[in-house]
Amino acid sequence: MSDWSEHYATRVSNMQASEIRELLKLLDQPDIISFAGGIPDPALFPHQAIAAAYQRILGDPERSAVALQYSISEGYLPLREWLAGYMGRLGVACTPENILITNGSQQALDFIGKLFLSPGDTALVAWPTYLGALQAFNSYEPRFDVLPGPDTNRSLESYTAGGMAKPKFGYVMPEFQNPTGTSLSLAERERLLDTAAEFDLPLAEDSAYEKLRYDGERVPSLLALAAARAGGIDHCKVLYCGTFSKSIVPALRIGWIVAAKPVIQKLVLMKQASDLHVSTLNQMVMYEVASALIEDLADTMRQVYRERRDAMVAALDRYMPEGVSFTRPEGGMFVWVTLPEGIDGAALLKRCIEVGRVAFVPGAAFFADRSCRNTMRMSFSLIPPAKIEEGIKRLAAVLKQMISETAV
Amino acid sequence: MSDWSEHYATRVSNMQASEIRELLKLLDQPDIISFAGGIPDPALFPHQAIAAAYQRILGDPERSAVALQYSISEGYLPLREWLAGYMGRLGVACTPENILITNGSQQALDFIGKLFLSPGDTALVAWPTYLGALQAFNSYEPRFDVLPGPDTNRSLESYTAGGMAKPKFGYVMPEFQNPTGTSLSLAERERLLDTAAEFDLPLAEDSAYEKLRYDGERVPSLLALAAARAGGIDHCKVLYCGTFSKSIVPALRIGWIVAAKPVIQKLVLMKQASDLHVSTLNQMVMYEVASALIEDLADTMRQVYRERRDAMVAALDRYMPEGVSFTRPEGGMFVWVTLPEGIDGAALLKRCIEVGRVAFVPGAAFFADRSCRNTMRMSFSLIPPAKIEEGIKRLAAVLKQMISETAV
Repeated sequence: MSDWSEHYATRVSNMQASEIRELLKLLDQPDIISFAGGIPDPALFPHQAIAAAYQRILGDPERSAVALQYSISEGYLPLREWLAGYMGRLGVACTPENILITNGSQQALDFIGKLFLSPGDTALVAWPTYLGALQAFNSYEPRFDVLPGPDTNRSLESYTAGGMAKPKFGYVMPEFQNPTGTSLSLAERERLLDTAAEFDLPLAEDSAYEKLRYDGERVPSLLALAAARAGGIDHCKVLYCGTFSKSIVPALRIGWIVAAKPVIQKLVLMKQASDLHVSTLNQMVMYEVASALIEDLADTMRQVYRERRDAMVAALDRYMPEGVSFTRPEGGMFVWVTLPEGIDGAALLKRCIEVGRVAFVPGAAFFADRSCRNTMRMSFSLIPPAKIEEGIKRLAAVLKQMISETAV
Repeated sequence: MSDWSEHYATRVSNMQASEIRELLKLLDQPDIISFAGGIPDPALFPHQAIAAAYQRILGDPERSAVALQYSISEGYLPLREWLAGYMGRLGVACTPENILITNGSQQALDFIGKLFLSPGDTALVAWPTYLGALQAFNSYEPRFDVLPGPDTNRSLESYTAGGMAKPKFGYVMPEFQNPTGTSLSLAERERLLDTAAEFDLPLAEDSAYEKLRYDGERVPSLLALAAARAGGIDHCKVLYCGTFSKSIVPALRIGWIVAAKPVIQKLVLMKQASDLHVSTLNQMVMYEVASALIEDLADTMRQVYRERRDAMVAALDRYMPEGVSFTRPEGGMFVWVTLPEGIDGAALLKRCIEVGRVAFVPGAAFFADRSCRNTMRMSFSLIPPAKIEEGIKRLAAVLKQMISETAV
């Protein structure tokens, strides 16, 4: 094999295989109960509505010619128009010119890194945060530091000490955060916006799980709150990332960014240079399916996932040994578990796969500095309640064994 | 509006709206004959076969559950297996592990820039070259210099004079190049490989128009030649970019990269961080359509586009005034026209739209330094022969008027 290392850009040294990716391969072994995924249940996909939409569009010669041809980088206009209305119902007054269609929200995160980060710039993220965001931003060679949050109070000076430039943006998932499942209250959101205003810090708001609320009251998005403060979306510095991956299906790869028009104009150029546009046909299908069904689908999903969340929390309550704590999320797909000090999530996983035939994601992967090894992310979205209980029971047994050995 | 300029990464200053993009908007005015596009004729799309494939896949509950779910970043295995066979028939022995599926070949170009280019690095491109490649690479803040080609003989020292680092890669479209329509002969390919070996220079080979050969004999790809020299694809330094956009349809957004395994492994990580994967469903559909129909479709396309190429060359011969030269491409979608010195392609376009109701792309956009303003790119792919003649006739009339004014 040739040696490629000297040919690569410096960013390539940041690109490492991810634990989640390797773990996803475990899903194929039928006797393993995997809480690793964090993917939606395909039984809830609107298969027939999607098939019917493809058939309608491809069966109409005029629409089919449009659907299969190159199209504009901004995204399919009727979909952006519908999204503008949808965002309006969420308290964000905007127009299609405030919206870019992306290949899922992962591409939105990549674009946000590409827009803001030169090598050595500082990006602020939660500690822990979404692994995919760390991967996306890492391509642009940033330093990571801790975004001020409910438990962190930081002055601007604390970031710029030693001659560092001020942070370029903050990334936050205010609802049912991946990996912890926790949400920011209204007061916490207002405080974050205060901090962002003080720092003149753009915020990237990732709302991937927004439709999956099982309890409690909806809280306005950071974008809605910031636009209200600034007198309109074009005057505020929040970029909102939405996706149909969790509310309809992932595999059409459709997400969107909502932001001030000048930002969207730059992102449209970025989209054009990156891959021209999202599949025209898939955008047309998603427009038809989302505009007709999104609320009904969300109702069904909430019902199914709520039961699974309940089952997971109940099983953790029932089986987990003393010294283990976990979140009780109001929505989303994840529970975050903190193990006793000294128990390594990765070591536990290895043992769980070998002995218990149960899997999860060790928490260290979600920290920019890989700290906090005694944590784990558990997804309940894909597993029926009875199997959730069985999986947690197995996991707890392995954990208890490990704790007893560690104590010795 | 807020001021965003100080928030942006340095690369954003490279992102400018493209002429092609603005021009594409002209296609919507029905009285304009536009040679600007460079897009396939939707009348040639296999609408029914595509509709049937979506229906088959979504109508099978088991396949539909896979088609609508997240999938691996490498791409759909049966599609990669089929592509490995397809590449084998083109003289490139490879396995699915040598292939990454991308969102069209535009994403392949973006990834190649991301893989090789740190700010200030040198990328070698043809002069002129594909505008989309310049846009893709520009995001990574390179310098551009001239790739050695049929008319350019450069020593490695000429690139590294003044302490510059040696070039990171060369980008080349050996077949029916966008924008010139010209191809590299076998001898020219061998010479380019000699130079690349001497420079230890990876090459990115863009084969977008490979299936659209109307005359002459097929020449082996740079990848095939380099693999033969090196004793296998894993030992050579050519990255081959393929796409279904020109041979099937653009809007499913499916292309591929073929390269040595260690490179593909890095690119898979890049794909995962960028947007996870290409639409699973679209990959499954493309696998079915391409494996059944690609050769038949190419036969039809070649027949239709050959007539149009012939019509354009004949009309240019017939109508263009003295002092105008143009290429006679053996394939692809473009003829490249060189105007008399002092005639500006952009000024001519403006007049052509206003007076002649005919459009093309001024050639300067295809030069990394925007030089050679007396050039233009003419696409024949979308226009029937009679209308091609009419358009060239109108264009020639405007041009003659302009030449006569310039001479005065």
